[in-house]
Amino acid sequence: MSYSSKIISDTVDAFSSLPSIGKKSAMRLALHLAGDSFQKKEKLIQALQQLVNDLQICSECFSYSDTPICSICSNPTRDRGLICVVENIRDLIAIEDTGSYKGLYHVLGGVISPLEGIGPEDLEINTLVQRIQENNCNELVMALSPTIDGETTIFYINRLLKDVPLKITTIARGVSFGGDLEYADEFTLGRSIQSRLPYSQRQMS
Amino acid sequence: MSYSSKIISDTVDAFSSLPSIGKKSAMRLALHLAGDSFQKKEKLIQALQQLVNDLQICSECFSYSDTPICSICSNPTRDRGLICVVENIRDLIAIEDTGSYKGLYHVLGGVISPLEGIGPEDLEINTLVQRIQENNCNELVMALSPTIDGETTIFYINRLLKDVPLKITTIARGVSFGGDLEYADEFTLGRSIQSRLPYSQRQMS
Repeated sequence: MSYSSKIISDTVDAFSSLPSIGKKSAMRLALHLAGDSFQKKEKLIQALQQLVNDLQICSECFSYSDTPICSICSNPTRDRGLICVVENIRDLIAIEDTGSYKGLYHVLGGVISPLEGIGPEDLEINTLVQRIQENNCNELVMALSPTIDGETTIFYINRLLKDVPLKITTIARGVSFGGDLEYADEFTLGRSIQSRLPYSQRQMS
Repeated sequence: MSYSSKIISDTVDAFSSLPSIGKKSAMRLALHLAGDSFQKKEKLIQALQQLVNDLQICSECFSYSDTPICSICSNPTRDRGLICVVENIRDLIAIEDTGSYKGLYHVLGGVISPLEGIGPEDLEINTLVQRIQENNCNELVMALSPTIDGETTIFYINRLLKDVPLKITTIARGVSFGGDLEYADEFTLGRSIQSRLPYSQRQMS
């Protein structure tokens, strides 16, 4: 695209290097910001500068944090005996948003994937084992994606911890709320029947 | 959404204040940038800082520019006798991208709209008249949107310049290339028939 200004063209390039933003959307964003208030531009610049200079990785759960230990790990009201293992920070936010989990997290940074050359040593698995041994952890909730790689990772961690007195659980797989049974895939529906619960346990606690 | 870091939450807020970026997309962008290379973040910060500090408005055509007069207005190979009047910079870029226009531009900053309280004095119309009188302009191409407000603006400028020896043209309205006649709206198809051209003039020059 042709711009009368190199500054606009640079801004369009910078935006269009982000995921899911094409040239046209990047142009709309650049022209919007160019015409918008000074405050809005400054707010975005400040946020990005903090991202560069101040963002840290929590040394306990490996989520993003403003301090050496994140606000979840340092929250005294959270159940420290419960650790939920997630693949990435997006999954952590999704679970946190449900409001139904009050334990801690552990961000693996991916799942074991022989095809993509990701082995256990590339993930935060050793730090997880160490964390479980050092703290008094009662239960490990595996909240990984229901894929072959996810299942492999759960199996690997399960075997690694077989001698540790610890309950290992996985999040329930089944038919979604509001979903039609006839449109659920066979595998999910099959699992859903195998993992059937007594009606009294079905109520949400 | 719940984040373990206020920096991430600030970045999400800054991104979601931009047009067509919702909370979920803003989160994806913030987490992507957080995990991405230092260079990519710096490139975006630099572009935004230039937008704040260095971006100017061309004093001739009122487009964005890096210098007091933009690269189009100061380009000696452009036809200075031809001025194309556009509503905004997005339209300028769209026309410039076609590669079939070699004159100058004039960005009005909108169109006359009584409903929205936009009058001629809110637009760069006086500067347009001044520019035409000061320079040796032969033709004014009106490239405004085919709306009531656009047509009103064309009519107003046309009347304002009735004593100036100048050819005023509008961009052709008609059926799009590749468009099916049966799907064209009646008004466009009607105009297209009224504005029919001899076959020899139909070829693109």
